[in-house]
Amino acid sequence: MKLEDVGERHVVRDITTLLNHKDMAIGIGDDCAAFPFGEYYLLITTDLISRKTHIPDIMSYHQIGWHIVAVNLSDIAAMGGTPTGFLASCGLPRNMKVRDFEEIARGMDSCCEEFGIRVLGGDTKETESLTLCGTALGKVRKEGILRRAGSQEGDIVAITGSLGKAACGYYSLQKGIDLPGAVKALLEPYPRVKEGEVLSESGLVTSCMDVSDGLASSLYQLSETTGNRFLIRLEDLPVAEEVSALEDIPVEELALYFGGDYELLFTMKRHGVEELKKSLRKVGSSLHEIGEVRTGPHNILQTTKGEEILENRGFEHFRKA
Amino acid sequence: MKLEDVGERHVVRDITTLLNHKDMAIGIGDDCAAFPFGEYYLLITTDLISRKTHIPDIMSYHQIGWHIVAVNLSDIAAMGGTPTGFLASCGLPRNMKVRDFEEIARGMDSCCEEFGIRVLGGDTKETESLTLCGTALGKVRKEGILRRAGSQEGDIVAITGSLGKAACGYYSLQKGIDLPGAVKALLEPYPRVKEGEVLSESGLVTSCMDVSDGLASSLYQLSETTGNRFLIRLEDLPVAEEVSALEDIPVEELALYFGGDYELLFTMKRHGVEELKKSLRKVGSSLHEIGEVRTGPHNILQTTKGEEILENRGFEHFRKA
Repeated sequence: MKLEDVGERHVVRDITTLLNHKDMAIGIGDDCAAFPFGEYYLLITTDLISRKTHIPDIMSYHQIGWHIVAVNLSDIAAMGGTPTGFLASCGLPRNMKVRDFEEIARGMDSCCEEFGIRVLGGDTKETESLTLCGTALGKVRKEGILRRAGSQEGDIVAITGSLGKAACGYYSLQKGIDLPGAVKALLEPYPRVKEGEVLSESGLVTSCMDVSDGLASSLYQLSETTGNRFLIRLEDLPVAEEVSALEDIPVEELALYFGGDYELLFTMKRHGVEELKKSLRKVGSSLHEIGEVRTGPHNILQTTKGEEILENRGFEHFRKA
Repeated sequence: MKLEDVGERHVVRDITTLLNHKDMAIGIGDDCAAFPFGEYYLLITTDLISRKTHIPDIMSYHQIGWHIVAVNLSDIAAMGGTPTGFLASCGLPRNMKVRDFEEIARGMDSCCEEFGIRVLGGDTKETESLTLCGTALGKVRKEGILRRAGSQEGDIVAITGSLGKAACGYYSLQKGIDLPGAVKALLEPYPRVKEGEVLSESGLVTSCMDVSDGLASSLYQLSETTGNRFLIRLEDLPVAEEVSALEDIPVEELALYFGGDYELLFTMKRHGVEELKKSLRKVGSSLHEIGEVRTGPHNILQTTKGEEILENRGFEHFRKA
């Protein structure tokens, strides 16, 4: 049995079972590991990108550096954390230009600076093709930690910002349509750190994760932690304005299944919605109710035509097409 | 200018200059980044290995998993720290067997267990060839932190354990000589965590690092942080017993230039040597005086023939042979 036969999420489940020791408080399965430290949890996460599978040729070296920081900070944000530092292990081909590697370092530095942290250290090694592994650190007050588990029947499902922008960036490049904002969203993802802090401080949020794998896939991943199911209303999805420029692609493909958006998906108590909308507006973001938490056998997508089973697909590594 | 034209240490210096911000307490340049946290520094380090450049085919999947934990814990040990956790980002080829990846996970788990920690989380991604990136966490009392800088003229230079064992493992495989202990040392390095804790607690050590890049190279790296130089006495090097089985290879090659040993190299005040010898013996290790800290233009190797300049070579990435 090979990895391509079972797919990434099976592998992660398998390894999680193999490595999960019962005395661990918060570890494998959430977006970050968390250590108790006084009133705080110290958060730590690691994420890897490599030339062949995650770094398209169109991405500049500066954007590559930005990217590896951003995807790690998104995991900190998903747990309600404030970033505190970043480290990078860089696997570099020997014939790479020194100047190009410096641009990667500058890109990492820019993203760190944007979020008030520093590149604290790392490692450089020779590899066949460019591979960057980032580690981000953060902290969150113990009572404010956001986790994947925690949703309860009757909670509403909500999302920050908009969906489908990164997908529009991808398809606009394929089709030669000029959508620079969407391309930037695709190549320079912006982690929702401020939004995560607001969700954490609110005390209203019952579970959270980012939607970088796609909204549908993320909902299935949340489902797995609790056994709860979701009903999602297609017409309530906050679709990015660029979606109108790609009329021949179904909106579900862009907003539900593609991924690459770094918005936060979360569940919360209904009574707090107005208060949280106000708080998110203050940091330049927004809250959109898109569905509710249910029990039952399936995750459901409600469209104008009725209810259907939400497909469990999105971006997944290893899987044969 | 390409990475292969300048070599790894030039790249690290370059990036260090580019990224070092003056307000950082302890960051790039030491083996770990360190964060103040109450009476402690929290230590964090990251290290990457990949199939082509660091994972010989002879290494079992279990050993690969052990290896990525061990090399990271060695960085924690070099700063006098106690490990507290480990994370792994795994770049895996899609045609890898699930069973082989499970063996890697078991190897990581074994090494973590040996040092009283857990695999806390990580990431799996598809890459062209196997690439593992580890992140280790540790802690050390503030007054006990060991750094690369700190040596003073007149301090002695010392090392734990023995030198050349990993090199003997490498050459024994090449030559078909049966040295299983040395091969194990090469393939399953054992980080000197207990030794690092003893050095930290002693209050006698003025600088420290591990010698995984080779003793000579490590001395040059220590030199760079302070401008101090070292005089090393060849006949005082604690050479591993396996060295006698490889008579046709000069002892300098095995003990000074090859690398792969994970002993701790450190400087200290002369008056504490006997006390520290006793403490290291209690944890099953040993202390060997091998030279002294000096000023002057060069690092010197003293042999029976007189004094010569210590060569600045060892294992280095990117460099053309």
